[in-house]
Amino acid sequence: MKEETIKEVLKFRDDRDWKQFHNPKDLAISICLEAAELLEVFQWSGAELDAKGKEDRVKEELADVLNYCILMADAYGLDMDEIVLEKMKDNNRKYPVSKAKGKSDKYNEL
Amino acid sequence: MKEETIKEVLKFRDDRDWKQFHNPKDLAISICLEAAELLEVFQWSGAELDAKGKEDRVKEELADVLNYCILMADAYGLDMDEIVLEKMKDNNRKYPVSKAKGKSDKYNEL
Amino acid sequence: MKEETIKEVLKFRDDRDWKQFHNPKDLAISICLEAAELLEVFQWSGAELDAKGKEDRVKEELADVLNYCILMADAYGLDMDEIVLEKMKDNNRKYPVSKAKGKSDKYNEL
Amino acid sequence: MKEETIKEVLKFRDDRDWKQFHNPKDLAISICLEAAELLEVFQWSGAELDAKGKEDRVKEELADVLNYCILMADAYGLDMDEIVLEKMKDNNRKYPVSKAKGKSDKYNEL
Repeated sequence: MKEETIKEVLKFRDDRDWKQFHNPKDLAISICLEAAELLEVFQWSGAELDAKGKEDRVKEELADVLNYCILMADAYGLDMDEIVLEKMKDNNRKYPVSKAKGKSDKYNEL
Repeated sequence: MKEETIKEVLKFRDDRDWKQFHNPKDLAISICLEAAELLEVFQWSGAELDAKGKEDRVKEELADVLNYCILMADAYGLDMDEIVLEKMKDNNRKYPVSKAKGKSDKYNEL
Repeated sequence: MKEETIKEVLKFRDDRDWKQFHNPKDLAISICLEAAELLEVFQWSGAELDAKGKEDRVKEELADVLNYCILMADAYGLDMDEIVLEKMKDNNRKYPVSKAKGKSDKYNEL
Repeated sequence: MKEETIKEVLKFRDDRDWKQFHNPKDLAISICLEAAELLEVFQWSGAELDAKGKEDRVKEELADVLNYCILMADAYGLDMDEIVLEKMKDNNRKYPVSKAKGKSDKYNEL
C-alpha cells in the first residue's frame, strides 16, 4: 500500500488508543469477519456471480478487509507489496504456466 | 498497492488464462478461504495471541489474502488505496475519538 | 443430536485429553475454519452450484463442522435441538410468511 | 438431529418457498457467514476465551450455524448423526490415542 494510506490507518488506530486490542489473533479473526461480510454481498445470488447493483457494498467491505490487513502487516512489521511479490515467486513455482494454463485445479492436483 | 505489485498479480493470472474463473462471487469466496487459512495459524493457541515462531506462515497467508484482494479490486476497477482512504473517512464519522478512545465496542454500541 | 453421537464425540476428545485446548474462542475459530473447508468444495465452480461429483467431500466437511458444534454446545451446556427450536420461534417472528414468502431479503429489508 | 427439529426447519423453509434459494453453494456460504457471526462474539476479547456475559449470543449464533447445517444435510439427503459417527471413525484412525494424547497438532504433524 501507499505510505499515505498506511499512515492514515495507523493514525486512526493510535488516535483511539486501539493498539491495545490489536493483538495478532484478534486481527486474524477480524480479517476473517470482514471477509465474511464481503462474501455476504453474494449470498443467495445463485448463478448470478457479479453482485450487480451492489458495487458500493463490495467497495466498502473490501476496504474493511484491507484495513485489517494493513494493521496485521504493521503488527508483524511486514511490507504488503513485498510479501505479495515474494508469494508470487512461490506461486510461479507451484503453478507453472505449462501445467496450470486454463485449469482451476489446486497445485497438488495438477 | 504499488503498480508493480498489481501488474505482477494480473500477469500471473493472465499468463494462466485464469480470468475465466475469477468471477466476483468466487473471488469473495477465495478471500474468505485465505482469511481462514491465516486464522488457522492461531487455532488452539488459547491465550497466546501472537503466533510466536509462526511468522512465516502469517506472512504467506496474509499475502494470499492480499493477492485475492488485488484480483477483486481489478474485477471492479477499484483502487485499493483510494477505497481504504474513503472508508477511513466513514470510520472517522462512525467512531469519533471522543467516544471511541480506549473502547473496543462497535459504533452502534458506543 | 442423538445421545450416542454426542457421547462418541466427547469420548474421542476425552480419550485424547483435548478438553484443555477446547476453550470457546478456539472452538468458534474451529467452526469457522471447518465451514471454510466446506465452502472450499464450491470454490471456482462459478454458476454450477451443486458440487456434482464431490458429495463425499461435502459429507466429510459438514461432519467436521458438526463435530465442533457438538463440542461448543458441550462447552456451554447447550442442547442443540433445543436451541434450534428456540431460534426457529425468533425466525418465525422476524420472517412472517406473509412478508417473506418467495423473497431472499434479510428481515430488516423486508 | 431429532426428527422434530429437522421437520421444523424444513417446514419454515417450505412455508416461505425458500428452497429455490437454497442451492448447496449458497448454503455453504451461509454456514460460513453464520460461523463468522458466532466468531464475532469473541472478537477483541484477547486472552479472555469464554465470552463471559455473552452466552445468549453464542446460543443464538450456534443455532444459526446448525440451522443451515440441517438445510445442507437435507440438500444432500445426509443424516447428520450418521455422518458425524462415520467421521469419528476416520478421526480415530488419523489421531490414535497413543500419538495424539495431550497434543493439539494436526494429524500430519503428529
